[in-house]
Amino acid sequence: MTTEMKTTDPAAAALLPVAKREGIETVWDRHKAMQPQCGFGQLGVCCRICWKGPCRIDPFDDGPKRGICGADAHTIVARNVIRMIAAGAAGHSEHGRHIALALLEVAEGKLPAYQIRDEAKLIAVAGKLGIATEAREILEIAHDIATVSLNDFRNQDTATPCAWTKATLTEKRMEKLAALGVLPHNIDAVITQIMGRTLVGCDAEPANLILGGIKGALADYDGMSLATDLSDILFGTPAPVVTAANLGVLKEEAVNIAVHGHNPLLSEVVCDVALQMNEAAKQAGAKEGINIVGVCCTGNEVMVRHGIPLAANYLSQEMVLVTGAVDAMVVDVQCIMPAVSEIAGCYHTELITTMDENKISGARHVSFREATATEDARQIITLAIDAFRRRDAKRVTIPDVQQTAIVGFSTEAIVAALSLLDAEQPLKPLLDNVVNGNIRGIALFAGCNSTRTPQDNSFVTMAKALAKNNVLLLATGCGAGAFAKHGMMTQEATLAYAGDGLKAVLTAVGEAAGLNGPLPLVLHMGSCVDNSRAVSVAVAVANALGVDLDALPLVASAPEAMSEKAVAIGSWSVALGIPTHLGTMPQVLGSSTVTELLTETAKDLFGGYFLVETDPEEAAQKLLAVIDEKRRGLGI
Amino acid sequence: MTTEMKTTDPAAAALLPVAKREGIETVWDRHKAMQPQCGFGQLGVCCRICWKGPCRIDPFDDGPKRGICGADAHTIVARNVIRMIAAGAAGHSEHGRHIALALLEVAEGKLPAYQIRDEAKLIAVAGKLGIATEAREILEIAHDIATVSLNDFRNQDTATPCAWTKATLTEKRMEKLAALGVLPHNIDAVITQIMGRTLVGCDAEPANLILGGIKGALADYDGMSLATDLSDILFGTPAPVVTAANLGVLKEEAVNIAVHGHNPLLSEVVCDVALQMNEAAKQAGAKEGINIVGVCCTGNEVMVRHGIPLAANYLSQEMVLVTGAVDAMVVDVQCIMPAVSEIAGCYHTELITTMDENKISGARHVSFREATATEDARQIITLAIDAFRRRDAKRVTIPDVQQTAIVGFSTEAIVAALSLLDAEQPLKPLLDNVVNGNIRGIALFAGCNSTRTPQDNSFVTMAKALAKNNVLLLATGCGAGAFAKHGMMTQEATLAYAGDGLKAVLTAVGEAAGLNGPLPLVLHMGSCVDNSRAVSVAVAVANALGVDLDALPLVASAPEAMSEKAVAIGSWSVALGIPTHLGTMPQVLGSSTVTELLTETAKDLFGGYFLVETDPEEAAQKLLAVIDEKRRGLGI
Repeated sequence: MTTEMKTTDPAAAALLPVAKREGIETVWDRHKAMQPQCGFGQLGVCCRICWKGPCRIDPFDDGPKRGICGADAHTIVARNVIRMIAAGAAGHSEHGRHIALALLEVAEGKLPAYQIRDEAKLIAVAGKLGIATEAREILEIAHDIATVSLNDFRNQDTATPCAWTKATLTEKRMEKLAALGVLPHNIDAVITQIMGRTLVGCDAEPANLILGGIKGALADYDGMSLATDLSDILFGTPAPVVTAANLGVLKEEAVNIAVHGHNPLLSEVVCDVALQMNEAAKQAGAKEGINIVGVCCTGNEVMVRHGIPLAANYLSQEMVLVTGAVDAMVVDVQCIMPAVSEIAGCYHTELITTMDENKISGARHVSFREATATEDARQIITLAIDAFRRRDAKRVTIPDVQQTAIVGFSTEAIVAALSLLDAEQPLKPLLDNVVNGNIRGIALFAGCNSTRTPQDNSFVTMAKALAKNNVLLLATGCGAGAFAKHGMMTQEATLAYAGDGLKAVLTAVGEAAGLNGPLPLVLHMGSCVDNSRAVSVAVAVANALGVDLDALPLVASAPEAMSEKAVAIGSWSVALGIPTHLGTMPQVLGSSTVTELLTETAKDLFGGYFLVETDPEEAAQKLLAVIDEKRRGLGI
Repeated sequence: MTTEMKTTDPAAAALLPVAKREGIETVWDRHKAMQPQCGFGQLGVCCRICWKGPCRIDPFDDGPKRGICGADAHTIVARNVIRMIAAGAAGHSEHGRHIALALLEVAEGKLPAYQIRDEAKLIAVAGKLGIATEAREILEIAHDIATVSLNDFRNQDTATPCAWTKATLTEKRMEKLAALGVLPHNIDAVITQIMGRTLVGCDAEPANLILGGIKGALADYDGMSLATDLSDILFGTPAPVVTAANLGVLKEEAVNIAVHGHNPLLSEVVCDVALQMNEAAKQAGAKEGINIVGVCCTGNEVMVRHGIPLAANYLSQEMVLVTGAVDAMVVDVQCIMPAVSEIAGCYHTELITTMDENKISGARHVSFREATATEDARQIITLAIDAFRRRDAKRVTIPDVQQTAIVGFSTEAIVAALSLLDAEQPLKPLLDNVVNGNIRGIALFAGCNSTRTPQDNSFVTMAKALAKNNVLLLATGCGAGAFAKHGMMTQEATLAYAGDGLKAVLTAVGEAAGLNGPLPLVLHMGSCVDNSRAVSVAVAVANALGVDLDALPLVASAPEAMSEKAVAIGSWSVALGIPTHLGTMPQVLGSSTVTELLTETAKDLFGGYFLVETDPEEAAQKLLAVIDEKRRGLGI
C-alpha cells in the first residue's frame, strides 16, 4: 500500500514514516493486514441474527440460497442494512437527548457551567415548534423547548409524528412521508421497532424492512435536528470565523489538548476552563499556554463556534498522537478508534475518556457530568498539564502543514450574508442565481473517511469538479474536515477552482460581508449532526420556490462513507428527496431487490435515491447530470 | 444427517420422508447445506459495524489481532453479544408495549373486542405497582396500570428505575443492581443506548459493554414482566387445564387454523371468533368445524389460557404445513421461519401475516388492528374456510402422534395448588419440602430449538435426569412445547421419571387439587415472555426465606437456545442471580475476557453466571452440583 493509496493529507503522509520508525501500527496497516475482507459481509449476505447461524448466501450458483430459517439474500441484506440505520440513529439521538436533558437542567437552573448563549436562536426555535414566547422568561421558553424535544423520545401515539421532523420539513414532504407510513413518532421507539422486526422469524419482506429502515433514518434526522439547534441555543449559533486546519495547528510550546468525538457538552467547558488555566500551563513551562485543537466532529463543533483549529478528521486521528506533541486527547463519543489507546501509551499522552458509556481499555476515565462540568474540565486540563511536563521533546514531530479555513456557515450565517445583498428577501439573491445558472446546483458533502479510498481524495476531487461547474458546495463532518485541511475553505480556493458563475456569486456575497473577496469555496456547516442545517437551507429554498425538496437542483454526497451514522444520514437524505451519492460500496449488493429499492424504486417513492460511484471524477459528472435533470424539471 | 440428528419428535420424524417426497426443503436440509458455518461468526470475532469492515480477528497466531479501527477480539465480541441482547429486548418489549397500549385503549372503552377478563389479577398488579384500588372503577385502575407500564418506555430520568423491575424483584437484588449501575430506567432508551455505544469508535471496554448489555437484558425482563401480567389482565391468568400436543392434534375433518408467533392480541380474538364461525366451517364440509392449534409461543399463550392444543414448537413449524391439513397459518411476530411461505405455497394453505412490521414475501397480509379485531379475525377465518374447500385430501398426512398435556401453571395457579395444603401459608409446603430435600432444587427450562442439537432432545434428556434427582421442573416457550409434545406434562411422566421425594410432593399437591394423582412432571408456565412468572415464584420463595435470589437452589437452562431473545433472557437470568445453563455454544468464545466475564466474573457480581455444556447428561449433572452448592450455602 503506497502512501498515495493511504492518504492525500500531506500532514498525515509526513507522519507515516515516523509511525513506521516508532513501530506504531496505523489504521492503514490494519486495513492491509485485514485483506482480503470477507466477501459475504461486503455483499450483506452474512446473517448473524441467531445462533443457528451464522448463515451466508452464496452469490454464485452452487451454494445455499437461503439461510437455515429460510431467509433469502434479500431479507438478510435488508435486515442488516436497517440495523445499521438503527445504530446510526441511536448514536445521533443519544447525542440529541443528552443535549436536550442538559437544556432542561439549564432551564431549571441546575447547571452552572452552561447558559443560554443564543437567545435569538431560542426564540426562533420556539417559533418553529409552536411554543409561545411573548412576555415569557427565556428559561421558561427553554424549558418548553427541552420538554417538546424530549417528547420526541416519549410519545407513544404512532399517529403523532415527531415534533422536530414536523417543524422542519416542507408540508408536501410531510404529506408524502405520512402517506408512505414512514414518519417517526418517537425516536427510541422506532429504533426498538427496527431491532424487534429484524429478530429471527420477524419481518422478512425486503421492501417492508427498508421502509422500516427509512422510518429509523427519519428518526435519525429528528434526533440530529434537535441536537443541532439545541446546541446552538446553549453554545451559540456558528458565524463565520477564520481559523486553521491540519496537524500544523499543534504547538511545540503549548500544552496541546485534542478534543475528539462529537458532543459539545464536554468540549465547550474544556475550552472555557482552558482560558482560566492558561497561567498554570505557562507555569509548567508551556510558553504559549494551552492550545486546544479539535479532532473529528467535536473538532468541528468547537471550530465552527469558536474558531478552535482542527487537527484531524477521522482517518488521521492516530497521527495527532504520532506528533508526540499532544499532552491529552480528551474524547467523548463516536468515531474514536480504540487504537488511540495503544498509541497514546507509546507517548506521554493522557488519553482521557469522559462518557460512562464510552470507555476504552487502557485510557484514563474521568466521568464527566454536566452538574460538575467545570471541576471535571479542570481535572482533565490538570492531567494535560502534568503530562506536558513528561513530554519528550526529542519525540515531537509536528508537520509544518496547516491551511487557513473560513468556517461557521450555519443556516443563519448564510441567510445573514445573503441579506447584505437583499435585506428584504435574503433568499432572493440565492434563488436568482440558481435560476440564472450562476449557481447550477447545490451539493452537500457529508460523511466519513474510509480506508477503502485514499483519505480525503474523493472529497477534494469531487469538489473541484463540481465547483468548476458552478455547484455551490456545503460540507459537514469529516468531509468538512477534509476540505479545511486541504485549503478548500479559503478565498484562494474560490478564485482557483470556482466556475465563473459561482465565483461571481461567492464574491458578491463575500464583498458585501466585508471579506474583501469571495466566500470560501466550500461552506463549513458544522459536524455530522449539523447535516440538519443543510436541510433547513434546502427547505427555505423549496418553500420560497413553492416546490418540494426533491424538485431542487440539490444533491448530497458521502464519498468516503464508513460509519453506521452515515448509513442513517444517507437514508434520510434519500427520504427527503435528495439524490445521494455514496463513494464507498454499500453492503447491499448481495440483494438485487434491496439494491433496486435503494437506487431506483426510492426515486419513485421519495424523489431521492442512492447513486453509487466509487470513482470521484465519474461521481461528479453523474451528480452534474442529476442537477441538470432537476433544473429541467424546474424549467430553468 | 440422520433423522436422529434432526429431531427426536416422532411426529416431525414421521413427516421428514413426506417432505422429501414432496421436494420440500426443511430447516434441517438448510442446516446441512449451510455447513461448514463461518468460524469467525461462531466465535463472535466478525465485526460488521462499519463499512471499513468486515473485519475478523484471527483466533490463531498468524492473522490480525485488531480490526481496522483497532478494536480487538474482546471489544468485537462484547459489542456483538450486547447488540443481540438489544434485539432480544426489543422483541419482548415491543410485545409488551403493544399489550400496554391495548390495555390503555380498553380502559378508554375503545376496543370492543377486548375486556378486562381477570379483575383479581388487575387488583394484584395495581397493588404491586403502588396504584390505589379502593373504591375505584376497574377501568380507571386499568388506565393507571397501562400508564405506569408505558412510563417504562417514556421515563427520561436515569435515576428512577423502571417501575416493573422495581415492583417485581427482591429489595436486595434491586440494591445490588443499582450499585452496579445496571438498572434500566426506560426500556427503549436502554436499547438505543446499546446501539449507540456499539457504533464505530464508541465503547471499547469489554466489561463496560457487557454491563451495558446486562442493563439491556434487565430492560428485556421489564418488558416481558409487563407483557405477561397485562396479558393475564386482558385474557385471564392461566390455570391448570388438560389438553394435547403434537401434530396429531390436527383434524382431517376440521378447518385447521394454526396460530403462530407470540402475541396473544391476535390469537385470542381468532379463538373467540372461531367459536362464532363454527357453523360456517361445517357448511363448507368440515364436519368437526374449526380446529385451532398453536405453534410456538402464540401456541403456548392460547394453550395455557384456554387449553388450545399445541401442534409444534419452533423447529417443526414447517412440518405443521407438510401435513397438508392446515388451511390457514396465521402469524403475528417472532420465530416465524420465512420458509413457511414457500411451503404453504406447495399446498392449499393460506399463510396470513397480520402485523404491519412483520410481513413475509409470498404471504397474504391482513393488517390486524385491535380496533377492528373482530372483523379482522372474521376475514382471516373466512380465508381459512375458503382454503379448506381447496384442500387436497390425498396430500393430507397427519401423524397419529399426540400427548396429553396438563398445562397452565402460572404463579397464581401454583400458589393456589399449594394453598390446598396450607391455606394460611401457601408457600410453606414448598419451602418445607425444599428444606427437607424432597425437592432438591428448582430448574426453569426456557428458550428455543436449534438445528445445532436434535430437536427437543436436550430438554427431555436433562429433564429426566433432573427429575430423577428430585428437581422441580418449570418450563416456558419452546422448552415447554418440547415437554408437552414428549409426554412430560402428564401424571404418568411424574410416576415414571420423578425421584421419590419429588413424586411425593407432586402427588400430595395433585391429590389435594383433586387430580387423582400427581401434578405433571414439568409445569408449563407459558410462552417465552412468561419467564417472568418463574421469577415471581422465585422472588416469593426468596422473600419467604429472607434471602436474595442467588441464594436459592434455583437454576435456569436454555439447552437449545437460538434466538436473540434467548440471549437477552439468559443475561437477565444471570443478573438476577440465577446460574444459567446454555446447551448451545454462545458466540463469545473468541474473547477470553468476555467468556470469563459471563461465566466467572458474573458470579462475583450477580451470583448468577452462564454455564455452558452441550452434552445434556453432563449438563444435568453440573446443574445438580450447582443446586447442591446453593443448598450448602443455605445450610440445608
